[in-house]
Amino acid sequence: MKFVDLIERKKQGCVHSREEICYIVNSIMNGEAYDYQISAWLMAMYFKGMTEQETSYFTEALANSGKTIDFEELKGLIVDKHSTGGVGDKVTITLVPLLAAAGVPVAKLADRGLGHSAGTVDKLESIPGFNTELEISSIVKQVKEISAVIASQAKDIAPADKKLYVLRNTTATADSEAMLAASIVSKKIASGASHIIIDVKYGSGAFMKTAEDAVQLSKRIVKIGRYLDKSITAVVTSMEEPLGRAVGHALEVIEAIEFLKGNITSGDLAELTYSFASIILMQLRYYDNEAEVRNYLKSLIESGKAIEKFKELISVQGGDVEIIDNYDKFNLPTFKIECESKKGGYVQNINACEIANALGVLGGSRESATGRIDHSVGVYLNKKSGEYVNKGETLYTIYSNDEESTRIAQRLCDGAFSINDSKPAQNGLIYEIVKTDEDDDV
Amino acid sequence: MKFVDLIERKKQGCVHSREEICYIVNSIMNGEAYDYQISAWLMAMYFKGMTEQETSYFTEALANSGKTIDFEELKGLIVDKHSTGGVGDKVTITLVPLLAAAGVPVAKLADRGLGHSAGTVDKLESIPGFNTELEISSIVKQVKEISAVIASQAKDIAPADKKLYVLRNTTATADSEAMLAASIVSKKIASGASHIIIDVKYGSGAFMKTAEDAVQLSKRIVKIGRYLDKSITAVVTSMEEPLGRAVGHALEVIEAIEFLKGNITSGDLAELTYSFASIILMQLRYYDNEAEVRNYLKSLIESGKAIEKFKELISVQGGDVEIIDNYDKFNLPTFKIECESKKGGYVQNINACEIANALGVLGGSRESATGRIDHSVGVYLNKKSGEYVNKGETLYTIYSNDEESTRIAQRLCDGAFSINDSKPAQNGLIYEIVKTDEDDDV
Repeated sequence: MKFVDLIERKKQGCVHSREEICYIVNSIMNGEAYDYQISAWLMAMYFKGMTEQETSYFTEALANSGKTIDFEELKGLIVDKHSTGGVGDKVTITLVPLLAAAGVPVAKLADRGLGHSAGTVDKLESIPGFNTELEISSIVKQVKEISAVIASQAKDIAPADKKLYVLRNTTATADSEAMLAASIVSKKIASGASHIIIDVKYGSGAFMKTAEDAVQLSKRIVKIGRYLDKSITAVVTSMEEPLGRAVGHALEVIEAIEFLKGNITSGDLAELTYSFASIILMQLRYYDNEAEVRNYLKSLIESGKAIEKFKELISVQGGDVEIIDNYDKFNLPTFKIECESKKGGYVQNINACEIANALGVLGGSRESATGRIDHSVGVYLNKKSGEYVNKGETLYTIYSNDEESTRIAQRLCDGAFSINDSKPAQNGLIYEIVKTDEDDDV
Repeated sequence: MKFVDLIERKKQGCVHSREEICYIVNSIMNGEAYDYQISAWLMAMYFKGMTEQETSYFTEALANSGKTIDFEELKGLIVDKHSTGGVGDKVTITLVPLLAAAGVPVAKLADRGLGHSAGTVDKLESIPGFNTELEISSIVKQVKEISAVIASQAKDIAPADKKLYVLRNTTATADSEAMLAASIVSKKIASGASHIIIDVKYGSGAFMKTAEDAVQLSKRIVKIGRYLDKSITAVVTSMEEPLGRAVGHALEVIEAIEFLKGNITSGDLAELTYSFASIILMQLRYYDNEAEVRNYLKSLIESGKAIEKFKELISVQGGDVEIIDNYDKFNLPTFKIECESKKGGYVQNINACEIANALGVLGGSRESATGRIDHSVGVYLNKKSGEYVNKGETLYTIYSNDEESTRIAQRLCDGAFSINDSKPAQNGLIYEIVKTDEDDDV
């Protein structure tokens, strides 16, 4: 077999056999294929796609390209959650302690942020001392002991996917549906999850721009789960505006803490956290009635069990637990500028992409894989869509360490808000839930 | 501008501006674009193509990526000929002396062979002492003095095209029509040609498998000429079977000498040489009547002027002119095996690709850009299609330096011939002539 012949085959629209897929992934790992050949194959794959069977072979091959985590001692029941990435998305930080407080073992292997999507690992690193770089043995031990861990994707997990990720981002091939699905699922499989919930976001602040594309991707993801015998639920959610009110690493952790303390009881962040937790508890057959499970989850918040679990998680991972009650410990920035609305009316929409760009200008996103980020900066949305703002009332607040970038960020944020007199129709956050058991046979 | 954004644009089917095209070619040359980005762009380009205008910008940018040859002293009139490559194609070696004998200045900048297409430069190097590695100044001087030169494509001519050539061959993107057209024309423009004839071959022994594809490519080539103000004629010719009877470096030079001496007066080699020479002489308005020009060309052969011009060319380029009258000087191989036909009948076809494979087995083709070739080996076709062969009569002759490879080559050659009782219909060699002035306005 020669790699160039496999590029030609994919270019012609042929379906790769399992053997060919293994050869491709092996060639990526052992250097037999040159980067320029891999990227040509990626582009051919973008145009010609992969069948579901082919995608599952590919997913398996990526998962097997490095180490795999085995949670055998926990009888293999292990929950993982993934989001395709959005602006202000801190649901991992609210969901993991909540599920763990409910007795569900959750091992969240997370990415760092790149470009306009911030990463959970980076967010948690805004907590002084918090360590996300854990060995596989520590990850297993911690889940066994406290039912929860949030760690950086170990570099040995699905290394072929990591290599492809870099190439995809620099060759405009990141948005191949089959490749996206395989990339997401391979890491979850390698990291030992048995039950997986995947938040597939669409909208201005997401990778997928339309709900239809997100549903397509979700179906593909769930189908791979069927082929590889994993329980996967994909939830298609809107990312037209930032999730919650905080955008920026430390600010988002604070908002998550506020939710876990019971100080945020409504709005998109609460809604999504409760929905995801409910889906998992029902998937695990702990509950079969949504109202009941929601009441139970609320009781975990109100009783303080959820925030206690988060404290425990922070403590075990070396973080300073005092941040829970003293937000000054986050070293928030010098400048805090409350920006007034230039007119009165209802907020119609807040363009998530523009807010993400503002965060970038403030120094709060990573431009390259090795770049640094400022965890302290961000934007707080005092008003969200559907809310009324008076002329001169605070619309949003910028947290910044630099006057010049503040001005640019302010211009971007002003442009992100659309405001007019009529109250906008509020669309549901969840567009569709795609589950394994609703799917066709494989 | 970022290269990745240009890949994305081409992936989306956008048309590159002149500025973008220049940026792409500059990035290829100065290393700003990584090879894996270039190959992803090549694959996107394969799927989305380029407009004619875009292709002409690209051609121009490739031509300007290195040195250019200026034949100002010859008032800019300079003819060049190119073939997309076929098996046994020695028309350059017959055409250049013939045109030069007619007083037309011809500067043929030729490639070396790679894979199953042998290169003119390699063929001429079978002449002891013949030097094809000429400086640009020597090329200009020689054309001025004797009206003819056949030199290796200087490494400084269109270097961006050379870089792309390597990537295209290893990433299954060699067959993009726009890229092929730009590659061919850019080198001719950089090397100073004013009047260009391009032999676009199709069939089993050619890069283009169908006449339709070859016509498409020809139209594209001629259109680029219009945009860039060069007179280009593309001739679509059949390469279903090897051209002439000799396949192999020294054997082909001998066949070309035989033609120039007037010993080969009919058949495909004579036909194509006369046709191309006529097209050029009429394009230059030396003649406007085909019968007249053909008579003139034949007189150049019969009078000995053509073979004298070839002798002059060999002499000026340091070759041993005695080879003209003494073929032993070519050091033909040890084994000369005359292979008999296993049945009687008319030769229907000789698969060019199989004969090329046989040459490869004998050591007569270059497998990698730096690989060596044996100039002396080859296959001589004693019978060609349309000719009758008796059972036991010699069908072809193998020239080999090795017994083992002879056996394999013989098996390949036997498989290449199809013979049966009925006389085959003879299709014309020239399928279509695509000229500038028949083309639409740009």
